[in-house]
Amino acid sequence: MRSSKWITLTTLLPVTVTFSGEVKAADRPERPNIVLFLVDDMGWQDSSLPFGKEATPLNKKYHTPNMELLAREGMMFTNAYATPVCTPTRVSLLTGMNAAHHGVTNWTSPRKDTNSEYADAEMEPTNWLINGLSPVPGIDKTAYATPFPELLKEAGYYTIHVGKAHWGSMGTPGANPYNLGFMVNIAGHAAGHPQSYLAGENYGNIPQKATPQAVPDLEEYFGSETFLTEALTLEAIKALEVPVRDKIPFYLNMAHYAVHTPIMSDRRFFQKYIDAGMDSIEARYASLIEGMDKSLGDLMTFFKSKGVDKSTIIIFMSDNGGLSLAPPRGGKPNTHNLPLKAGKGSVYEGGIREPMLVKWPGVVKPGTKSEQYLIVEDFFPTILQMAKIKKPEIIQTVDGISFVPVLKNPAYTDSNRVLIWHYPHRWVNQEGPGINYYSAIRKGNWKLVYSMKSGKKELYNLKDDLGETNDLSGQNPAKVKELSALLSDHLRKWNSPLPVRKTTQEPVSLPDENY
Amino acid sequence: MRSSKWITLTTLLPVTVTFSGEVKAADRPERPNIVLFLVDDMGWQDSSLPFGKEATPLNKKYHTPNMELLAREGMMFTNAYATPVCTPTRVSLLTGMNAAHHGVTNWTSPRKDTNSEYADAEMEPTNWLINGLSPVPGIDKTAYATPFPELLKEAGYYTIHVGKAHWGSMGTPGANPYNLGFMVNIAGHAAGHPQSYLAGENYGNIPQKATPQAVPDLEEYFGSETFLTEALTLEAIKALEVPVRDKIPFYLNMAHYAVHTPIMSDRRFFQKYIDAGMDSIEARYASLIEGMDKSLGDLMTFFKSKGVDKSTIIIFMSDNGGLSLAPPRGGKPNTHNLPLKAGKGSVYEGGIREPMLVKWPGVVKPGTKSEQYLIVEDFFPTILQMAKIKKPEIIQTVDGISFVPVLKNPAYTDSNRVLIWHYPHRWVNQEGPGINYYSAIRKGNWKLVYSMKSGKKELYNLKDDLGETNDLSGQNPAKVKELSALLSDHLRKWNSPLPVRKTTQEPVSLPDENY
Repeated sequence: MRSSKWITLTTLLPVTVTFSGEVKAADRPERPNIVLFLVDDMGWQDSSLPFGKEATPLNKKYHTPNMELLAREGMMFTNAYATPVCTPTRVSLLTGMNAAHHGVTNWTSPRKDTNSEYADAEMEPTNWLINGLSPVPGIDKTAYATPFPELLKEAGYYTIHVGKAHWGSMGTPGANPYNLGFMVNIAGHAAGHPQSYLAGENYGNIPQKATPQAVPDLEEYFGSETFLTEALTLEAIKALEVPVRDKIPFYLNMAHYAVHTPIMSDRRFFQKYIDAGMDSIEARYASLIEGMDKSLGDLMTFFKSKGVDKSTIIIFMSDNGGLSLAPPRGGKPNTHNLPLKAGKGSVYEGGIREPMLVKWPGVVKPGTKSEQYLIVEDFFPTILQMAKIKKPEIIQTVDGISFVPVLKNPAYTDSNRVLIWHYPHRWVNQEGPGINYYSAIRKGNWKLVYSMKSGKKELYNLKDDLGETNDLSGQNPAKVKELSALLSDHLRKWNSPLPVRKTTQEPVSLPDENY
Repeated sequence: MRSSKWITLTTLLPVTVTFSGEVKAADRPERPNIVLFLVDDMGWQDSSLPFGKEATPLNKKYHTPNMELLAREGMMFTNAYATPVCTPTRVSLLTGMNAAHHGVTNWTSPRKDTNSEYADAEMEPTNWLINGLSPVPGIDKTAYATPFPELLKEAGYYTIHVGKAHWGSMGTPGANPYNLGFMVNIAGHAAGHPQSYLAGENYGNIPQKATPQAVPDLEEYFGSETFLTEALTLEAIKALEVPVRDKIPFYLNMAHYAVHTPIMSDRRFFQKYIDAGMDSIEARYASLIEGMDKSLGDLMTFFKSKGVDKSTIIIFMSDNGGLSLAPPRGGKPNTHNLPLKAGKGSVYEGGIREPMLVKWPGVVKPGTKSEQYLIVEDFFPTILQMAKIKKPEIIQTVDGISFVPVLKNPAYTDSNRVLIWHYPHRWVNQEGPGINYYSAIRKGNWKLVYSMKSGKKELYNLKDDLGETNDLSGQNPAKVKELSALLSDHLRKWNSPLPVRKTTQEPVSLPDENY
């Protein structure tokens, strides 16, 4: 599906340090530390920090004081996007490619050669890259690309992964963060969620009861009261002490398992939400959110205590929209990201719009806000630019665009840019808004939502209609046509996976083919 | 049981490297790379390289060409010792303390607060440090000490652990090699053996079937043909590429799970042993040995290919004597270390004497041999001396003595040195020679073996009686008395764990108390 030429990775800016006292480095730049704080399944509203124009009822439910602090010290992004589910986002992040381009369009099963799609009555299983990302060629059903941590490592960064990995299936190189450029890996493997958040349950590592989701590497906490989020934070700080001490620039991929299911209570924070009258499952969820927020605060405190906060960039992001199926969430389905429509799995805003923050001392003006839309594959060129890595030799063609210009100027706007989402799968049994076999495209404030199954097209103007309630497709056929053509052109160019109908054995029509 | 003062670890020879191009290092020495290649349960005879005066029938069964190569490039030690079982050896190694001194006198259960001893009719459970080693104070039932990898890390080494750890139980800091000074950990945790060597069995990580012995961190190999020994070697090489490229001195703790039970066939080598007419279980065992030897060769080849072989010390060692219970071994029990008596679990030579090799380019003369006796706690001061770390600030009092003088001069001898073994436990159900509640002491060629249960003392002269067949205690009461006093003095001074009789509720007599 994806062909590419093998180019040997070379060290772009060789850093040769000998411990006999010499450093061979002529024109090597000073490189900042970079932390990507990536939350799992966190929605745009899952914070006391409002990412919309004003504080919503949902914002008032949650307590995330450290996100508020980070926002005061950095820039908020109100129009930041990921993909509808996690692995596509994580692969886009590491490769700079749109999910429809790299071909890992769904979450990967921990088991190799296993299609994680839900069976559908009308569609054949979709032919996508079910084994995930691979940093080496020749691995069946993988997207072969150069992950940016490899480039950071080559440039002298101390690269650390902590938490959820979920880049590739067991039995492939992508299962192991060490193969993706990370020098330290703690708790990252082929699974997409934890079997348990509880040390009292050994995070799932109970003989005869363990699933592939049992969390590795944390045996020292077994039997204690240490919630998974806390254990990962402690381990991250432990790993950071090496580069901080030796003054080596570091990249930390702090990828929390929180707030993914199983929605378990973080006892440190749970009770106050119950006392506030919250639904009990939602109180658990809020406790997962606040535990995650504490982790952010603990890291920020650590950087300050070590005097490296001024040289450390922190990027806060989530990997897809907030889960809004109920159950497992409490309350009514599709209400958990209001005013956004739907949630995880959907191409509507609730499934893809993310809380995003960037602190970059000396570059980003504290307390600023950008409404420029961007998407997770933009992180690849942005992080390389932050790390001063120019013209990296990589396998893939990068779709992402660096948002460093936005960071330097919150007024920077680009309304010609096109963003694309493509989810050619059945995610779950139930049907839901924008869930199962949908694509979408945004340009400026216009967004086209396309049902691959029915061929239906919807058009929204997000400027006035954040909740995607007013379909303007009938009133604006020219815009529908323009966006249909743009979306179709990209999917064709990228040879994107498409669902195939059982009746015809033909792939579904692209949006410009079904007028 | 063990009291000590908390002394803050400080960097002895601070290495401050900044990536802006400066290195603050005035008088920092050039440090060699150090590899400890530690095999599990490998006996003194489990090699085609004879560690005795001549090749034995057992030597002729095995194929270990890379050990032979290492011997040609370094020094053989014919009188190197460990303890009768694995965790005591591993703790002695990391702390420099005799097992009777640190108090972790038996293997640790992966489960916290769990005494791994076999129940005995006469003795109460022994009060020993059942949770293993701890690098921090205040952890219940642990030996608190400063592990040398922490000192190496402080001195600028890139410290890597690969394979079996088994230093502490789940739920304690010692479960995690990251807490013991390692910057990278692959596959090391609280368990003492692998659930499976087979990638086809996911090294044990099968949902609902996993035990605490399921090997972590190797998901990329699941479902492949990669034998565990090979996977660990590949991961070690992957981890080594970082310090090799950046010219940072490294310490690799290459701690194979091989050749511990389960005795599984390494298919790459198995068939030729069957074709040679070997018993089928022994053919499996020989294949485990040869797979381990290939790993040694692959590492040596890697160092040569990277041009670091001249700056890399390789120490080859095993952690206790070869297993000689049958089953699980094939053939007759207590024959697997001949001409040595007994095997793993015993204080007779078969349980404690180890194959040991050291290559140190520029220091050790190739192809040399030393008959100086030494023991595994000596590795602590030796490795620190190799790394040029002087006067480390550590918690514990070190019992080991550096064998660097031996490495520099194979004729170096010290026959006044005293070595002590102390195993105050029932290891297994069956009784066996020197197994269950035995202590021993060696000084010069004299060795006293003491049964704590019966009070019986045996005296051997190893010079003429390597097989410990001729008890000279009746003929030489003065030597018995001298060694009894020396052994007792040490156990008293160290406040060593002692078995307690159920009938009297009193500890057993020390050897100088029962004349």
